[in-house]
Amino acid sequence: MAGGVGSRFWPVSRAATPKQFLDITGVGRTFLQQTFDRFASIIPVENILVVTSKFYFQIVKDQLPLIPECNILLESYKRNTAPCIAYATAKIATKCPDATIVVAPSDHYIDSVDNFSRMIVSAMDYASGHDKLFTIGVPPTRPETGYGYIQYVRKSEQKVGDYTLYPVKVFTEKPNASLAAVFLSSGEFLWNSGLFVWRLSTINNALRKFLPKIYDAFNNISGVYYTEDEQAIVDKIYESCEAISIDYGVMEKADNTMVFRASFGWSDMGTWEALYCQSRDKDDNGNLIMAEEAMLSHTEDNIIFSDEIGKLVVLKDLSNYMVINTRDVLMVCPRSEEKFKQILADLAVKGKSNFQ
Amino acid sequence: MAGGVGSRFWPVSRAATPKQFLDITGVGRTFLQQTFDRFASIIPVENILVVTSKFYFQIVKDQLPLIPECNILLESYKRNTAPCIAYATAKIATKCPDATIVVAPSDHYIDSVDNFSRMIVSAMDYASGHDKLFTIGVPPTRPETGYGYIQYVRKSEQKVGDYTLYPVKVFTEKPNASLAAVFLSSGEFLWNSGLFVWRLSTINNALRKFLPKIYDAFNNISGVYYTEDEQAIVDKIYESCEAISIDYGVMEKADNTMVFRASFGWSDMGTWEALYCQSRDKDDNGNLIMAEEAMLSHTEDNIIFSDEIGKLVVLKDLSNYMVINTRDVLMVCPRSEEKFKQILADLAVKGKSNFQ
Repeated sequence: MAGGVGSRFWPVSRAATPKQFLDITGVGRTFLQQTFDRFASIIPVENILVVTSKFYFQIVKDQLPLIPECNILLESYKRNTAPCIAYATAKIATKCPDATIVVAPSDHYIDSVDNFSRMIVSAMDYASGHDKLFTIGVPPTRPETGYGYIQYVRKSEQKVGDYTLYPVKVFTEKPNASLAAVFLSSGEFLWNSGLFVWRLSTINNALRKFLPKIYDAFNNISGVYYTEDEQAIVDKIYESCEAISIDYGVMEKADNTMVFRASFGWSDMGTWEALYCQSRDKDDNGNLIMAEEAMLSHTEDNIIFSDEIGKLVVLKDLSNYMVINTRDVLMVCPRSEEKFKQILADLAVKGKSNFQ
Repeated sequence: MAGGVGSRFWPVSRAATPKQFLDITGVGRTFLQQTFDRFASIIPVENILVVTSKFYFQIVKDQLPLIPECNILLESYKRNTAPCIAYATAKIATKCPDATIVVAPSDHYIDSVDNFSRMIVSAMDYASGHDKLFTIGVPPTRPETGYGYIQYVRKSEQKVGDYTLYPVKVFTEKPNASLAAVFLSSGEFLWNSGLFVWRLSTINNALRKFLPKIYDAFNNISGVYYTEDEQAIVDKIYESCEAISIDYGVMEKADNTMVFRASFGWSDMGTWEALYCQSRDKDDNGNLIMAEEAMLSHTEDNIIFSDEIGKLVVLKDLSNYMVINTRDVLMVCPRSEEKFKQILADLAVKGKSNFQ
C-alpha cells in the first residue's frame, strides 16, 4: 500500500512526493524501496503488487524498476485501505485463488530485515492453513497516542514456532493520553502495525460479509484484470466507492482475528515528532541532526533537517524547535504537533498552496 | 573607500563578498554602486577613485564598469583608512594638486541622493576656499554605541548657504551605553559619518604633520603613479605601513577640524542589528523581512533574510531572532550582537573557516 499523500513530514514530504517515496533518514533507500527489499527476499518479485495513486505511477516505476508494470495498481481517488485491499485481492484471485497474502504499508520503519522476514514467513505458513485474519501487533514501549491499539486475550496465548499468537479481543482507535497510559500499563495491548496476513479466501469472505458493495464491485470485473480495459473500469469503481479503512470496515467487526506479537522493532514514524522520539542518533544535547554540516551552541532537543548540498546550518540558543530546510521551504517551528498542523492549515488559507 | 572585509553581515557578507559589494536590502544596486551613483551626479566619473583590496579588483570593475581601471587603487594589506587616504591623495596630487577632495565610505546608507549631493557640492565649494579639515556629522536619534561621535562648539555655529557648520571640539570613539545617552541628551554631539571634505593641500599638510612616515612613503614615489610600476611599489609600501585610521591618526590631533550638520538621513548599517533599527519597512509585528515569500505567525521582532529564489520562509512562535538563509548557510541566532560575534568566532575554532 503506497497511496498515502502524507503532509506530515512537510515540507520534505509534499503532495508530489509523500513520505513513502522519501529517504528521510538518509539510509540510501526510500521507505517504499526498503519495504520492497524486505519482501523481495522472501517473495518472488512478480508476486509483489504495489497499490498507489495514479499520480505516483512514474515514481513507483522509477523506484522499483524490478516490479512488472501490471503489478502497479493505480487508484484514481483516495478511498482508504479497504478498497485498496479488495482491488488487489480480486486481481490476485484471477491468477492465484489459493494465495496467502501479506498486506503492508510502505512507509513504516522496521529495524531488522532478518527478524521481519523470518516472522512473516512463519506467519504466512501458519495463515495458509487457518481461516483467520492475522495481524501483527507491536509491544508498546510508551503511551503513544498516534497509533491504534489491539487488545488481545492473554490467557489464550499460543506458540507458532518461535512466535506468540493471541486471539484479538478488540481493535481500538487512537486513544487519548490517559487511555494510552492505561493500555500500556495493562500489558494487554499491542500497537496496530497495519501489517496483515491472511488466505485470499479468508479476506474475501470477510469483505463479502462486511463490505459487500466493495467486494462485489471488484470481483464482478474479474474478466478485465490484466487487460487494457482494467484501468478505466477500476477508475469508475473508485469514483463511486466508499472510503473506508480495512480496520474499521472489516477487522473491528470480524470474529476470527488473531494477532502475532512482533519480534522486530517497528515505527510508523508518521510525523517529525515520531521520528524524533524513535531516533537513536540524537547528539548529546538531544538534537536530531539530519544535515550535511551543522554548528550548534546552546541548542537542545531540536529536529534539524536540511537536504541542500553544501549548506551549513548554524543554530544558537534554540531549544525544542524544528528547523527544516528544503530546496524551496525553510521552516522554523516549535516541536509541537499542534503548531505544525496550524502551519499546514495556514498554507492553504494564506494562498501558499503551491508549497503544499 | 571600498576595502572593508566586513563579516558583520555574515553569512550574507563573506570574506569574498563584503558588505559594500552587496545589495542587502534589495534595491537593485549594491552599496558601492549607490555610492558611485551619488557622486557620479556631481563629479566627473574620471575623477572618482576607488580604493579597495587587491582581492576585490574584479568585483569593483564588474560593479562599476564606467570607472577607468587606473582609478581603482589596490591595497595588498589591510592598513585602515589613513594609508588609503594618503595613497589616493598623493596620486591625485600628480594630476591635480589644487583638487578639493571628498572621502566617502562605500558601504553606508543615505536616504536622499538629492539632499546628499546638494550638501556635498556646497561643502566642496566652501572647503575649496578654506584651509580646514571638514567632516560631516549626523544628528543622533538614539544613544547608539556602534558609532563614533563628534562634539562641536555650539556657540561658534555658522551658516554656509543652507547648511550649518561648527568647529569640532573633540572626536570621540564609540561610547558605552551610558556615555552615549549623555552624548545624545547634551545636544552637542553628532555621529561621525566617516565623510570628509578638504583641499588636497590641507589634508596633505595634516598627514605630513601627524603621520609623516605614511605621507613620505606615498609622496616620495610620485613618479610611478599611472605607470606599470605603481602596483609593485605601492605593495611594498603597504607591506611595512602602519595600520591606522584617519580619525585616530589625523582628525583627533588636528586643530583645524570643522563639522557640517548633515541634512540627509544616514546610517552605517554596519550590522544586522543596525539594519534592523534603521529600517522603516518592518511589518506590524516588528519583523524586518528580506525574503521573497514568508509565512509568519506569533513571530515578532525578527530579522528575516533569505536570498534563495523561490524559497518560502515559514516561522512560528519565534521572537527576537535572526533567521538568515543564503545559498550555503542557514543561521538561526538571537538578535544579540554578542551572540552573533560568538558564532563568527566559532566558525574559525570549529573548523568551518570555509564558510567565513
